[in-house]
Amino acid sequence: MTINERAPEGDRSFDAVRDRLSMPLVEAMETQRAVRKVLPDEVDDAIVLRCIELALKAPTGSNGQNWEFIVVKDPEIKAEFAAQYRRAWRLYGSLGHRLARGDETMKKVLGAVQWQVDNFEQIPVLVVPCLVGPQRFYPGSLARSSHYGSIYPSVQNLLLAARAMGLGASLITLPLWSGYKARKILNLPATVQPCCIVPMGWPRGRYGPTTRKPVSKVVHLDSYGNRAFGDSGA
Amino acid sequence: MTINERAPEGDRSFDAVRDRLSMPLVEAMETQRAVRKVLPDEVDDAIVLRCIELALKAPTGSNGQNWEFIVVKDPEIKAEFAAQYRRAWRLYGSLGHRLARGDETMKKVLGAVQWQVDNFEQIPVLVVPCLVGPQRFYPGSLARSSHYGSIYPSVQNLLLAARAMGLGASLITLPLWSGYKARKILNLPATVQPCCIVPMGWPRGRYGPTTRKPVSKVVHLDSYGNRAFGDSGA
Repeated sequence: MTINERAPEGDRSFDAVRDRLSMPLVEAMETQRAVRKVLPDEVDDAIVLRCIELALKAPTGSNGQNWEFIVVKDPEIKAEFAAQYRRAWRLYGSLGHRLARGDETMKKVLGAVQWQVDNFEQIPVLVVPCLVGPQRFYPGSLARSSHYGSIYPSVQNLLLAARAMGLGASLITLPLWSGYKARKILNLPATVQPCCIVPMGWPRGRYGPTTRKPVSKVVHLDSYGNRAFGDSGA
Repeated sequence: MTINERAPEGDRSFDAVRDRLSMPLVEAMETQRAVRKVLPDEVDDAIVLRCIELALKAPTGSNGQNWEFIVVKDPEIKAEFAAQYRRAWRLYGSLGHRLARGDETMKKVLGAVQWQVDNFEQIPVLVVPCLVGPQRFYPGSLARSSHYGSIYPSVQNLLLAARAMGLGASLITLPLWSGYKARKILNLPATVQPCCIVPMGWPRGRYGPTTRKPVSKVVHLDSYGNRAFGDSGA
Protein backbone atom coordinates (compact mmCIF):
# COMPACT_ATOMS: atom_id res chain seq x y z
CA MET A 1 0.00 0.00 0.00
CA THR A 2 1.45 3.35 -0.93
CA ILE A 3 0.93 6.65 0.77
CA ASN A 4 -0.98 8.24 -2.08
CA GLU A 5 -3.71 5.70 -2.36
CA ARG A 6 -7.26 6.28 -3.45
CA ALA A 7 -10.23 4.93 -1.59
CA PRO A 8 -10.86 1.27 -2.33
CA GLU A 9 -13.07 0.96 -5.40
CA GLY A 10 -15.51 -1.81 -6.23
CA ASP A 11 -16.16 -4.08 -3.27
CA ARG A 12 -16.19 -2.05 -0.09
CA SER A 13 -17.74 -4.68 2.15
CA PHE A 14 -16.18 -5.48 5.51
CA ASP A 15 -14.97 -8.79 4.11
CA ALA A 16 -13.16 -6.95 1.34
CA VAL A 17 -11.35 -4.48 3.61
CA ARG A 18 -10.91 -6.28 6.94
CA ASP A 19 -7.49 -7.64 6.02
CA ARG A 20 -6.21 -4.09 5.65
CA LEU A 21 -6.16 -3.93 9.45
CA SER A 22 -2.93 -5.87 9.26
CA MET A 23 -1.30 -2.78 7.75
CA PRO A 24 2.02 -2.15 9.52
CA LEU A 25 1.46 0.02 12.60
CA VAL A 26 4.08 2.54 11.50
CA GLU A 27 2.45 2.91 8.07
CA ALA A 28 -0.99 3.52 9.56
CA MET A 29 0.44 6.20 11.85
CA GLU A 30 2.57 7.88 9.21
CA THR A 31 -0.24 8.11 6.67
CA GLN A 32 -3.05 9.03 9.04
CA ARG A 33 -4.56 12.40 8.33
CA ALA A 34 -7.90 14.13 8.63
CA VAL A 35 -9.93 13.14 5.55
CA ARG A 36 -12.92 15.49 5.55
CA LYS A 37 -14.14 15.21 1.96
CA VAL A 38 -15.97 11.91 1.74
CA LEU A 39 -18.49 10.30 -0.61
CA PRO A 40 -22.15 9.88 0.37
CA ASP A 41 -21.90 6.14 -0.40
CA GLU A 42 -22.97 3.77 2.33
CA VAL A 43 -20.39 2.33 4.74
CA ASP A 44 -20.87 -1.27 5.84
CA ASP A 45 -22.01 -1.32 9.49
CA ALA A 46 -19.54 -4.11 10.20
CA ILE A 47 -16.64 -1.80 9.29
CA VAL A 48 -17.83 0.88 11.69
CA LEU A 49 -18.40 -1.68 14.45
CA ARG A 50 -14.93 -3.15 13.92
CA CYS A 51 -13.41 0.33 14.25
CA ILE A 52 -15.29 0.79 17.51
CA GLU A 53 -14.31 -2.68 18.71
CA LEU A 54 -10.65 -1.72 18.26
CA ALA A 55 -11.31 1.63 19.95
CA LEU A 56 -12.35 -0.39 23.01
CA LYS A 57 -8.82 -1.85 23.23
CA ALA A 58 -7.45 1.53 24.31
CA PRO A 59 -6.73 2.19 27.98
CA THR A 60 -9.12 3.95 30.37
CA GLY A 61 -8.47 5.26 33.87
CA SER A 62 -8.59 2.34 36.35
CA ASN A 63 -9.85 0.28 33.38
CA GLY A 64 -13.24 1.94 33.93
CA GLN A 65 -14.32 1.51 30.29
CA ASN A 66 -16.80 4.27 31.04
CA TRP A 67 -17.66 4.95 27.43
CA GLU A 68 -20.55 4.70 24.98
CA PHE A 69 -20.39 5.18 21.22
CA ILE A 70 -23.36 6.58 19.32
CA VAL A 71 -23.38 5.70 15.60
CA VAL A 72 -25.45 8.25 13.68
CA LYS A 73 -26.87 7.39 10.25
CA ASP A 74 -30.36 8.95 10.48
CA PRO A 75 -30.54 11.93 8.05
CA GLU A 76 -32.64 14.00 10.47
CA ILE A 77 -30.14 13.62 13.29
CA LYS A 78 -27.26 14.43 10.95
CA ALA A 79 -29.17 17.54 9.83
CA GLU A 80 -29.51 18.68 13.43
CA PHE A 81 -25.77 18.36 14.00
CA ALA A 82 -25.15 20.09 10.64
CA ALA A 83 -27.19 23.07 11.86
CA GLN A 84 -25.19 23.15 15.11
CA TYR A 85 -21.91 22.88 13.21
CA ARG A 86 -22.91 25.79 10.92
CA ARG A 87 -23.90 27.97 13.86
CA ALA A 88 -20.50 27.45 15.51
CA TRP A 89 -18.59 27.72 12.24
CA ARG A 90 -20.06 31.14 11.44
CA LEU A 91 -18.15 32.43 14.46
CA TYR A 92 -15.03 30.25 14.60
CA GLY A 93 -14.63 29.83 10.85
CA SER A 94 -14.45 33.55 10.21
CA LEU A 95 -12.04 33.85 13.11
CA GLY A 96 -9.95 31.06 11.59
CA HIS A 97 -9.90 32.71 8.16
CA ARG A 98 -8.68 35.92 9.73
CA LEU A 99 -5.89 34.12 11.62
CA ALA A 100 -4.90 32.05 8.57
CA ARG A 101 -4.27 35.07 6.35
CA GLY A 102 -1.17 34.29 4.28
CA ASP A 103 -0.83 30.73 5.64
CA GLU A 104 -1.50 28.51 2.62
CA THR A 105 -1.52 25.21 4.53
CA MET A 106 -4.03 26.53 7.03
CA LYS A 107 -6.17 27.94 4.19
CA LYS A 108 -6.31 24.46 2.65
CA VAL A 109 -7.41 22.98 5.99
CA LEU A 110 -10.07 25.67 6.36
CA GLY A 111 -11.29 24.91 2.84
CA ALA A 112 -11.69 21.23 3.73
CA VAL A 113 -13.53 22.10 6.94
CA GLN A 114 -15.79 24.45 4.95
CA TRP A 115 -16.59 21.54 2.63
CA GLN A 116 -17.42 19.40 5.65
CA VAL A 117 -19.64 22.10 7.14
CA ASP A 118 -21.48 22.59 3.83
CA ASN A 119 -21.95 18.87 3.17
CA PHE A 120 -22.40 17.51 6.66
CA GLU A 121 -25.74 15.82 5.93
CA GLN A 122 -24.10 13.86 3.07
CA ILE A 123 -21.53 12.19 5.31
CA PRO A 124 -22.73 8.60 5.70
CA VAL A 125 -21.73 7.92 9.31
CA LEU A 126 -20.95 9.94 12.41
CA VAL A 127 -19.50 8.25 15.47
CA VAL A 128 -19.95 10.12 18.74
CA PRO A 129 -17.66 8.81 21.53
CA CYS A 130 -19.12 9.62 24.95
CA LEU A 131 -17.85 9.49 28.54
CA VAL A 132 -20.16 8.13 31.22
CA GLY A 133 -20.25 9.47 34.73
CA PRO A 134 -18.70 12.42 36.50
CA GLN A 135 -15.03 13.34 36.57
CA ARG A 136 -13.03 11.68 39.32
CA PHE A 137 -12.63 13.13 42.72
CA TYR A 138 -9.19 14.50 41.87
CA PRO A 139 -7.89 18.05 42.22
CA GLY A 140 -8.62 20.48 39.34
CA SER A 141 -6.78 19.87 36.11
CA LEU A 142 -5.82 16.32 37.14
CA ALA A 143 -9.52 15.39 37.17
CA ARG A 144 -10.05 16.88 33.72
CA SER A 145 -6.96 15.31 32.18
CA SER A 146 -7.78 11.88 33.63
CA HIS A 147 -11.36 12.24 32.37
CA TYR A 148 -10.52 12.96 28.73
CA GLY A 149 -7.54 10.61 28.93
CA SER A 150 -10.15 7.85 29.18
CA ILE A 151 -11.73 8.59 25.80
CA TYR A 152 -9.21 10.12 23.37
CA PRO A 153 -6.85 7.12 23.26
CA SER A 154 -9.87 5.14 22.02
CA VAL A 155 -10.68 7.85 19.47
CA GLN A 156 -7.15 7.52 18.11
CA ASN A 157 -7.59 3.74 17.75
CA LEU A 158 -10.86 4.43 15.89
CA LEU A 159 -9.11 6.84 13.52
CA LEU A 160 -6.17 4.48 12.89
CA ALA A 161 -8.50 1.54 12.24
CA ALA A 162 -10.53 3.67 9.81
CA ARG A 163 -7.38 4.77 8.05
CA ALA A 164 -6.13 1.19 7.72
CA MET A 165 -9.40 0.00 6.15
CA GLY A 166 -9.28 2.93 3.72
CA LEU A 167 -12.11 4.91 5.29
CA GLY A 168 -11.83 8.70 5.54
CA ALA A 169 -12.30 10.11 9.03
CA SER A 170 -11.58 13.19 11.07
CA LEU A 171 -11.89 14.38 14.65
CA ILE A 172 -14.16 17.37 15.30
CA THR A 173 -15.81 18.95 18.31
CA LEU A 174 -17.57 22.10 17.04
CA PRO A 175 -21.01 20.51 16.39
CA LEU A 176 -21.07 19.78 20.14
CA TRP A 177 -20.63 23.43 21.17
CA SER A 178 -23.92 23.22 23.02
CA GLY A 179 -23.77 20.22 25.32
CA TYR A 180 -27.45 20.70 26.14
CA LYS A 181 -28.49 20.58 22.48
CA ALA A 182 -26.16 17.65 21.66
CA ARG A 183 -27.60 15.59 24.52
CA LYS A 184 -31.11 16.39 23.31
CA ILE A 185 -30.32 15.40 19.71
CA LEU A 186 -28.91 12.03 20.80
CA ASN A 187 -31.33 11.46 23.67
CA LEU A 188 -28.40 11.17 26.08
CA PRO A 189 -28.92 11.00 29.85
CA ALA A 190 -27.37 13.83 31.84
CA THR A 191 -24.61 11.46 33.00
CA VAL A 192 -23.38 10.81 29.43
CA GLN A 193 -21.11 13.43 27.89
CA PRO A 194 -20.53 13.52 24.12
CA CYS A 195 -16.82 14.32 23.68
CA CYS A 196 -16.28 14.65 19.95
CA ILE A 197 -17.58 13.50 16.58
CA VAL A 198 -15.76 11.31 14.07
CA PRO A 199 -17.43 11.72 10.64
CA MET A 200 -16.65 8.75 8.40
CA GLY A 201 -17.03 7.89 4.75
CA TRP A 202 -15.15 6.69 1.70
CA PRO A 203 -12.63 9.39 0.75
CA ARG A 204 -13.13 11.64 -2.26
CA GLY A 205 -9.45 12.44 -2.48
CA ARG A 206 -6.25 10.74 -1.57
CA TYR A 207 -4.48 10.04 1.67
CA GLY A 208 -1.16 11.69 2.00
CA PRO A 209 1.74 12.29 4.28
CA THR A 210 1.43 14.91 7.01
CA THR A 211 3.88 17.60 7.95
CA ARG A 212 4.95 17.83 11.55
CA LYS A 213 7.53 19.68 13.57
CA PRO A 214 10.70 17.57 13.90
CA VAL A 215 10.86 15.57 17.13
CA SER A 216 13.96 17.50 18.26
CA LYS A 217 11.87 20.67 18.46
CA VAL A 218 9.39 19.29 20.99
CA VAL A 219 11.56 17.07 23.19
CA HIS A 220 13.31 18.22 26.37
CA LEU A 221 15.49 16.12 28.69
CA ASP A 222 14.66 16.23 32.42
CA SER A 223 14.00 19.96 32.49
CA TYR A 224 12.09 22.25 30.17
CA GLY A 225 14.45 23.92 27.71
CA ASN A 226 17.17 21.26 27.96
CA ARG A 227 17.51 20.25 24.31
CA ALA A 228 19.90 17.41 25.07
CA PHE A 229 18.72 15.38 22.08
CA GLY A 230 19.57 18.27 19.77
CA ASP A 231 18.86 17.54 16.17
CA SER A 232 19.97 13.94 16.40
CA GLY A 233 17.05 13.22 14.09
CA ALA A 234 16.48 9.81 15.63
CA MET B 1 4.88 -12.48 17.25
CA THR B 2 2.53 -14.08 19.70
CA ILE B 3 0.41 -12.43 22.34
CA ASN B 4 2.26 -13.92 25.27
CA GLU B 5 5.67 -12.67 24.41
CA ARG B 6 8.43 -11.81 26.81
CA ALA B 7 10.46 -8.66 26.55
CA PRO B 8 13.13 -8.91 23.88
CA GLU B 9 16.26 -10.36 25.40
CA GLY B 10 19.82 -9.76 24.35
CA ASP B 11 20.17 -6.86 21.96
CA ARG B 12 17.70 -4.16 22.90
CA SER B 13 19.17 -1.40 20.79
CA PHE B 14 16.94 0.67 18.54
CA ASP B 15 18.41 -1.07 15.51
CA ALA B 16 17.39 -4.41 16.99
CA VAL B 17 13.77 -3.46 17.67
CA ARG B 18 12.88 -0.79 15.09
CA ASP B 19 11.51 -3.33 12.60
CA ARG B 20 8.91 -4.37 15.15
CA LEU B 21 7.08 -1.16 14.31
CA SER B 22 5.82 -2.95 11.24
CA MET B 23 3.73 -5.16 13.52
CA PRO B 24 0.18 -5.38 12.10
CA LEU B 25 -1.92 -2.50 13.43
CA VAL B 26 -4.62 -4.85 14.67
CA GLU B 27 -2.10 -6.94 16.60
CA ALA B 28 -0.59 -3.88 18.30
CA MET B 29 -4.05 -2.73 19.37
CA GLU B 30 -5.28 -6.13 20.51
CA THR B 31 -2.21 -6.85 22.62
CA GLN B 32 -1.72 -3.37 24.09
CA ARG B 33 -2.03 -3.29 27.83
CA ALA B 34 -0.65 -1.32 30.74
CA VAL B 35 2.73 -2.87 31.59
CA ARG B 36 3.68 -1.37 34.95
CA LYS B 37 6.33 -3.81 36.19
CA VAL B 38 9.47 -2.98 34.25
CA LEU B 39 13.19 -3.65 34.61
CA PRO B 40 15.61 -0.90 35.67
CA ASP B 41 17.72 -1.62 32.54
CA GLU B 42 18.50 1.31 30.31
CA VAL B 43 16.30 2.06 27.30
CA ASP B 44 18.02 3.32 24.16
CA ASP B 45 17.21 7.04 23.70
CA ALA B 46 16.54 6.43 20.02
CA ILE B 47 13.66 4.09 20.93
CA VAL B 48 12.05 6.71 23.14
CA LEU B 49 12.54 9.41 20.50
CA ARG B 50 11.02 7.19 17.81
CA CYS B 51 7.97 6.62 20.02
CA ILE B 52 7.61 10.38 20.42
CA GLU B 53 8.16 10.95 16.71
CA LEU B 54 5.22 8.66 15.98
CA ALA B 55 3.19 10.38 18.71
CA LEU B 56 3.60 13.57 16.68
CA LYS B 57 1.70 11.95 13.79
CA ALA B 58 -1.54 12.11 15.77
CA PRO B 59 -4.07 14.85 15.08
CA THR B 60 -4.32 18.11 17.05
CA GLY B 61 -7.07 20.73 16.99
CA SER B 62 -6.58 22.96 13.92
CA ASN B 63 -3.26 21.13 13.48
CA GLY B 64 -1.91 23.32 16.29
CA GLN B 65 0.75 20.79 17.35
CA ASN B 66 0.78 22.66 20.63
CA TRP B 67 2.68 20.00 22.51
CA GLU B 68 6.00 19.42 24.24
CA PHE B 69 7.36 16.11 25.54
CA ILE B 70 9.64 15.99 28.55
CA VAL B 71 11.80 12.85 28.76
CA VAL B 72 12.85 12.23 32.36
CA LYS B 73 15.88 10.05 33.15
CA ASP B 74 17.50 12.02 36.01
CA PRO B 75 17.17 9.98 39.26
CA GLU B 76 16.51 13.10 41.35
CA ILE B 77 13.63 14.22 39.19
CA LYS B 78 12.19 10.71 39.17
CA ALA B 79 12.46 10.68 42.96
CA GLU B 80 10.48 13.91 43.18
CA PHE B 81 7.68 12.46 41.08
CA ALA B 82 7.85 9.24 43.12
CA ALA B 83 7.22 11.29 46.26
CA GLN B 84 4.27 13.02 44.61
CA TYR B 85 2.89 9.69 43.39
CA ARG B 86 3.14 8.19 46.91
CA ARG B 87 1.39 11.17 48.45
CA ALA B 88 -1.56 10.84 46.06
CA TRP B 89 -1.59 7.05 46.26
CA ARG B 90 -1.95 7.06 50.05
CA LEU B 91 -5.37 8.62 49.53
CA TYR B 92 -6.57 7.15 46.22
CA GLY B 93 -4.95 3.76 46.62
CA SER B 94 -6.70 3.03 49.89
CA LEU B 95 -9.93 4.26 48.32
CA GLY B 96 -9.30 1.93 45.38
CA HIS B 97 -8.61 -1.05 47.62
CA ARG B 98 -11.89 -0.44 49.43
CA LEU B 99 -13.84 -0.22 46.14
CA ALA B 100 -12.10 -3.31 44.70
CA ARG B 101 -13.10 -5.58 47.57
CA GLY B 102 -14.02 -8.94 46.01
CA ASP B 103 -13.05 -7.87 42.48
CA GLU B 104 -10.05 -10.06 41.63
CA THR B 105 -9.18 -8.32 38.34
CA MET B 106 -9.17 -4.92 39.99
CA LYS B 107 -7.08 -6.28 42.87
CA LYS B 108 -4.49 -7.44 40.34
CA VAL B 109 -4.42 -3.99 38.74
CA LEU B 110 -4.05 -2.35 42.15
CA GLY B 111 -1.18 -4.70 42.94
CA ALA B 112 0.63 -3.65 39.76
CA VAL B 113 0.04 0.02 40.52
CA GLN B 114 1.36 -0.57 44.05
CA TRP B 115 4.51 -2.07 42.52
CA GLN B 116 4.87 0.98 40.30
CA VAL B 117 4.38 3.36 43.23
CA ASP B 118 6.95 1.47 45.34
CA ASN B 119 9.52 1.22 42.53
CA PHE B 120 8.98 4.47 40.69
CA GLU B 121 12.62 5.59 40.95
CA GLN B 122 13.74 2.36 39.26
CA ILE B 123 11.75 2.97 36.09
CA PRO B 124 14.31 3.97 33.47
CA VAL B 125 12.30 6.57 31.52
CA LEU B 126 9.29 8.78 32.11
CA VAL B 127 7.73 10.67 29.21
CA VAL B 128 5.59 13.66 30.19
CA PRO B 129 3.36 14.89 27.32
CA CYS B 130 2.42 18.55 27.79
CA LEU B 131 -0.04 20.96 26.20
CA VAL B 132 1.13 24.48 25.42
CA GLY B 133 -1.09 27.51 25.70
CA PRO B 134 -4.56 28.15 27.06
CA GLN B 135 -7.73 26.29 26.17
CA ARG B 136 -9.57 27.62 23.15
CA PHE B 137 -12.15 30.30 23.35
CA TYR B 138 -14.97 27.74 23.16
CA PRO B 139 -17.93 27.30 25.51
CA GLY B 140 -17.38 25.18 28.65
CA SER B 141 -16.92 21.46 28.13
CA LEU B 142 -16.22 21.93 24.40
CA ALA B 143 -13.07 23.88 25.26
CA ARG B 144 -11.91 21.19 27.67
CA SER B 145 -12.63 18.29 25.32
CA SER B 146 -10.90 20.02 22.39
CA HIS B 147 -7.92 20.80 24.64
CA TYR B 148 -7.26 17.25 25.81
CA GLY B 149 -8.29 15.92 22.39
CA SER B 150 -5.06 17.54 21.16
CA ILE B 151 -2.77 15.46 23.36
CA TYR B 152 -4.29 12.05 24.14
CA PRO B 153 -4.39 10.78 20.55
CA SER B 154 -0.61 11.34 20.53
CA VAL B 155 -0.28 9.52 23.86
CA GLN B 156 -2.06 6.53 22.34
CA ASN B 157 0.39 6.53 19.40
CA LEU B 158 3.23 6.62 21.93
CA LEU B 159 1.79 3.63 23.80
CA LEU B 160 1.17 1.62 20.62
CA ALA B 161 4.67 2.32 19.33
CA ALA B 162 6.15 1.26 22.68
CA ARG B 163 4.08 -1.91 22.64
CA ALA B 164 5.19 -2.76 19.10
CA MET B 165 8.88 -2.37 19.99
CA GLY B 166 8.37 -4.58 23.04
CA LEU B 167 8.69 -1.80 25.62
CA GLY B 168 6.41 -1.81 28.67
CA ALA B 169 4.45 1.39 29.20
CA SER B 170 1.39 2.70 30.97
CA LEU B 171 -0.60 5.90 31.23
CA ILE B 172 -0.81 7.56 34.63
CA THR B 173 -1.81 10.97 35.97
CA LEU B 174 -1.59 10.73 39.78
CA PRO B 175 2.03 11.99 40.16
CA LEU B 176 0.74 15.23 38.60
CA TRP B 177 -1.94 15.81 41.24
CA SER B 178 -0.28 19.12 42.09
CA GLY B 179 0.13 21.05 38.86
CA TYR B 180 2.17 23.64 40.73
CA LYS B 181 4.65 21.06 42.02
CA ALA B 182 4.85 19.22 38.68
CA ARG B 183 5.68 22.46 36.86
CA LYS B 184 8.35 23.22 39.43
CA ILE B 185 9.92 19.76 39.15
CA LEU B 186 10.17 20.03 35.36
CA ASN B 187 10.92 23.75 35.24
CA LEU B 188 7.85 24.29 33.04
CA PRO B 189 6.63 27.79 32.18
CA ALA B 190 3.11 28.63 33.38
CA THR B 191 1.82 28.22 29.81
CA VAL B 192 2.89 24.56 29.61
CA GLN B 193 0.57 22.01 31.20
CA PRO B 194 1.82 18.50 31.99
CA CYS B 195 -1.10 16.17 31.10
CA CYS B 196 0.02 12.69 32.08
CA ILE B 197 3.10 10.52 32.54
CA VAL B 198 4.06 7.47 30.49
CA PRO B 199 6.60 5.40 32.48
CA MET B 200 8.58 3.14 30.16
CA GLY B 201 10.95 0.22 30.52
CA TRP B 202 11.61 -3.33 29.42
CA PRO B 203 8.80 -5.51 30.84
CA ARG B 204 9.35 -7.87 33.75
CA GLY B 205 6.37 -9.99 32.82
CA ARG B 206 4.52 -10.88 29.68
CA TYR B 207 2.14 -9.01 27.49
CA GLY B 208 -1.29 -10.49 27.32
CA PRO B 209 -4.75 -10.04 25.93
CA THR B 210 -7.10 -7.57 27.58
CA THR B 211 -10.70 -8.09 28.54
CA ARG B 212 -13.21 -5.57 27.34
CA LYS B 213 -16.96 -5.22 27.25
CA PRO B 214 -18.33 -6.54 23.92
CA VAL B 215 -18.86 -3.82 21.33
CA SER B 216 -22.63 -4.51 21.28
CA LYS B 217 -22.84 -3.32 24.89
CA VAL B 218 -21.45 0.15 24.18
CA VAL B 219 -22.89 0.97 20.74
CA HIS B 220 -26.19 2.75 20.12
CA LEU B 221 -27.71 3.65 16.75
CA ASP B 222 -28.85 7.26 16.28
CA SER B 223 -30.35 7.59 19.73
CA TYR B 224 -29.10 6.54 23.15
CA GLY B 225 -30.58 3.19 24.15
CA ASN B 226 -31.28 2.05 20.58
CA ARG B 227 -29.35 -1.24 20.50
CA ALA B 228 -29.95 -1.76 16.78
CA PHE B 229 -26.69 -3.67 16.35
CA GLY B 230 -27.76 -6.11 19.04
CA ASP B 231 -25.23 -8.83 19.63
CA SER B 232 -24.23 -9.09 16.01
CA GLY B 233 -20.71 -9.51 17.32
CA ALA B 234 -19.22 -7.81 14.28
